[in-house]
Amino acid sequence: MPAQSMDELVSLCKRRGFIFPGSDIYGGLQGTYDYGPLGVELKNNLKAAWWRSMIYERDDIEGLDASILTHKMVLRHSGHEATFTDPMVDNRTNKKRYRLDHLLKDQKPEILSSISAAFGFEGEGVDALSSAMTKNPEKAEVALNAGKALDPDDGKPGNWTAPRPFNMMFKTTVGPVADEESYAYLRPETAQGIFTNFKNVVDSTSRRLPFGIAQIGKSFRNEITPRNFIFRVREFEQMELEFFVTPGTDDAWHSTWVETRLQWWRDQGLESNNLEPYHQTKEDLSHYSKATVDILYRFPHGLEELEGIANRTDFDLGSHTRGNDSLGIQANVEPNTDSTEKLTIPHPETQKPIVPFVIEPSAGVDRGVLAVLTEAYTKETLENGSERIVLKLRPHLAPIKVAVIPLAKNKLEITDVARKLKKDLQAIGFGRVLYEDTGNIGKAYRRHDEVGTPLCITVDFDTIGQGNKDGSEPSDPNLLGTVTVRNRDTMAQERIAMKDLPAYLLERLR
Amino acid sequence: MPAQSMDELVSLCKRRGFIFPGSDIYGGLQGTYDYGPLGVELKNNLKAAWWRSMIYERDDIEGLDASILTHKMVLRHSGHEATFTDPMVDNRTNKKRYRLDHLLKDQKPEILSSISAAFGFEGEGVDALSSAMTKNPEKAEVALNAGKALDPDDGKPGNWTAPRPFNMMFKTTVGPVADEESYAYLRPETAQGIFTNFKNVVDSTSRRLPFGIAQIGKSFRNEITPRNFIFRVREFEQMELEFFVTPGTDDAWHSTWVETRLQWWRDQGLESNNLEPYHQTKEDLSHYSKATVDILYRFPHGLEELEGIANRTDFDLGSHTRGNDSLGIQANVEPNTDSTEKLTIPHPETQKPIVPFVIEPSAGVDRGVLAVLTEAYTKETLENGSERIVLKLRPHLAPIKVAVIPLAKNKLEITDVARKLKKDLQAIGFGRVLYEDTGNIGKAYRRHDEVGTPLCITVDFDTIGQGNKDGSEPSDPNLLGTVTVRNRDTMAQERIAMKDLPAYLLERLR
Repeated sequence: MPAQSMDELVSLCKRRGFIFPGSDIYGGLQGTYDYGPLGVELKNNLKAAWWRSMIYERDDIEGLDASILTHKMVLRHSGHEATFTDPMVDNRTNKKRYRLDHLLKDQKPEILSSISAAFGFEGEGVDALSSAMTKNPEKAEVALNAGKALDPDDGKPGNWTAPRPFNMMFKTTVGPVADEESYAYLRPETAQGIFTNFKNVVDSTSRRLPFGIAQIGKSFRNEITPRNFIFRVREFEQMELEFFVTPGTDDAWHSTWVETRLQWWRDQGLESNNLEPYHQTKEDLSHYSKATVDILYRFPHGLEELEGIANRTDFDLGSHTRGNDSLGIQANVEPNTDSTEKLTIPHPETQKPIVPFVIEPSAGVDRGVLAVLTEAYTKETLENGSERIVLKLRPHLAPIKVAVIPLAKNKLEITDVARKLKKDLQAIGFGRVLYEDTGNIGKAYRRHDEVGTPLCITVDFDTIGQGNKDGSEPSDPNLLGTVTVRNRDTMAQERIAMKDLPAYLLERLR
Repeated sequence: MPAQSMDELVSLCKRRGFIFPGSDIYGGLQGTYDYGPLGVELKNNLKAAWWRSMIYERDDIEGLDASILTHKMVLRHSGHEATFTDPMVDNRTNKKRYRLDHLLKDQKPEILSSISAAFGFEGEGVDALSSAMTKNPEKAEVALNAGKALDPDDGKPGNWTAPRPFNMMFKTTVGPVADEESYAYLRPETAQGIFTNFKNVVDSTSRRLPFGIAQIGKSFRNEITPRNFIFRVREFEQMELEFFVTPGTDDAWHSTWVETRLQWWRDQGLESNNLEPYHQTKEDLSHYSKATVDILYRFPHGLEELEGIANRTDFDLGSHTRGNDSLGIQANVEPNTDSTEKLTIPHPETQKPIVPFVIEPSAGVDRGVLAVLTEAYTKETLENGSERIVLKLRPHLAPIKVAVIPLAKNKLEITDVARKLKKDLQAIGFGRVLYEDTGNIGKAYRRHDEVGTPLCITVDFDTIGQGNKDGSEPSDPNLLGTVTVRNRDTMAQERIAMKDLPAYLLERLR
């Protein structure tokens, strides 16, 4: 059974070195997290699995790694300067500020009903209500105050302002002169770096439709209320694919990508019944999107978005194209005289330059890590009545693949063999192999269960032919050169010859 | 012979999809670059080699991935708020601004001599002169104007201001309220995230001295004058190790790390005679450093720093420790009442809590990529008098390991075999294998020489037993199931059975 509460996960993550709060020793910087020794391996393994499935195992996708600092014109023409906003309200009494939808979610049912009623709503849900309130801020202010909406911070009814749009992009000054014009943004999504490099990639790789460009990297959003551990944060990592297709083939490609991405998440160990595709309704859709399917996952805090797969039509490349009024672009794009390029590619049949449509599967790396941890976290009661926590991660995601444990850490004949074995297994190249000589064997097993190490290998006296230490009878010669391999999930132990280990491990870890 | 000019590299990088200017279609954002389809593979391969050598092949280093957004207290107590500055001067005539040392480097010898003379200097070099001028800004202003220092932009003598310190950190506002106190920094180095997580890592891994924490990630510096392609940029990536040792063992560990890091760069293909260790003199050293050795590389623009290996003593952990006046810290640290922690670890012998010393090998990823490209770039004249460009990258760094080329791209029997071969070789897991069906075989070879692909494999009519297409004589049965493997460096071709390829490739690519 997966983790039932976020607290269990947060506690394990800190205790075992997966994830720590950012700037921890100075009280933390809200919405930032640091990945510890095991977290960085888990995250890198998840990213590598995505990269492999996108770039290596297919023949129609190229990789990219664009910069985080982004020219303001990119985010002006993408629409982010004007529309990448969240509605927020202030409590005049205590000067606290909240995202309107988060504030609504935190209200008691009777208060929420009273606010809903003011807008003629009855159980349509918080997102629709928030959206209606944002469109009519004066009425929203009256409804919040008349409904006596409570401030989540002090639990008292607030003195609420009307909702106002708040742009979520981080700005910074670039260059030595700090004037009005010398700012740039931290990208709010990696996607724009793909669109602005469309021509560079096409020119250098001779790609033709259909093809994609994939990117993994950090993005930044100034969330008003970061929450739910690494689910909603201000600094996060994305895995985004922009897959360019001929208009007319976009609906079919959209369906294909929804299926492909669902299967990929299953391959990372997420159970089908915790994954749910959600087809956005017309009201949900962003203005540029023809269709969007969200892949939801049953996180400890609820069923929430893990990935979104959008049919963004020709909106993005069209918006970044110079002279975009003469190209028959279907999306509603603003004129662009700032860009230097036409982002077109030959139509596969007519060979005429067209602005292609794009399908965008966009996944959160941190949300992926959280989902994988949620799914893997298992509390088991053993036969002897004791409890163990075990992270049942798929082997390709496990931070440590194998722990090599010398049974006696001060016996040179044993530690020499164990160190050499660690080195040999490491050289195979399937990920991190740990030389583990802290604490006793029982504690080592328990620790490696908790961090998801699939296999523990113990080098003992039998391995070196000294199975019977007191010399009263001869050591079993059949055990010379063998080690004990202990399985994380079954806790079964078997005796394997060291020379057979590479094949044994490759079969179980790949 | 390595690349002789930066222009050659810049041109290859853009043409073949290694590196593009950032925000290119909007005129670029100075000091930012985007890594294209091949650049991202090369960069990832270099980072993976470093991670492997640090975390996987050793038993005394843990990994970390801390956030970029950093609490201002971290960078106040690290000393960056006060001292992470460059001296800059303004030209009052045209409002241009320059880093003083860069301005001095751009002067004609006779002008530089005259400025030097004003400070009693004679050929001590620009860095020392710049440093002396910064300490005496009034005198510096007089010297610049009396010496008629030229503005590099318009080539005319400027009307220069005195040099002033300019803090190189990027700031941004975090959270919904933009007041005086709500700012954070983009980290100017990854190192601080390691120091602030010292206790988290020690507590979760039970590490004891000596041990290290390694991190790869983006850092940001608001360089006044970014220059030399990806050498001096505003957004860049670092590979930093902080290796914690018992005071007294620090000098020996420092020497060991200098040797280890030099050897690692040689393993990436950099020739010894292009690498030069430089022992910083007392005047060069940062105030916290006991000793620093720079590893210099002969870049196209000169012999410049690729990595620095510093003995930072107990300065960093000491500075971030609460109540640091009572711990016998040797470095000169400011009092700290903002931190919540004492960053100590038991002394290996006395078991008393001490603040350890730290050795820091800090390398630039982008500079590493530039060095590797410089070294690999080769122009050869072939026997027939034609010229070829070949990137002689070490196989583990090559963006594409193998290109599988169907000789006839419209012959299904050949393309089926080629596609299956690509898939099988990809599954071995040594990196990207490309299915290559654009253009003719000669052009494919030339392209893969230029991007450094070690091996090209051609599937032809002999492979499928149709070596003699006109049927006049039987196809050579010995060639059935074999392919041509062409070596990038020697251009030699050999015929290999497909079933022998995995072993053949593993031997040559690992």
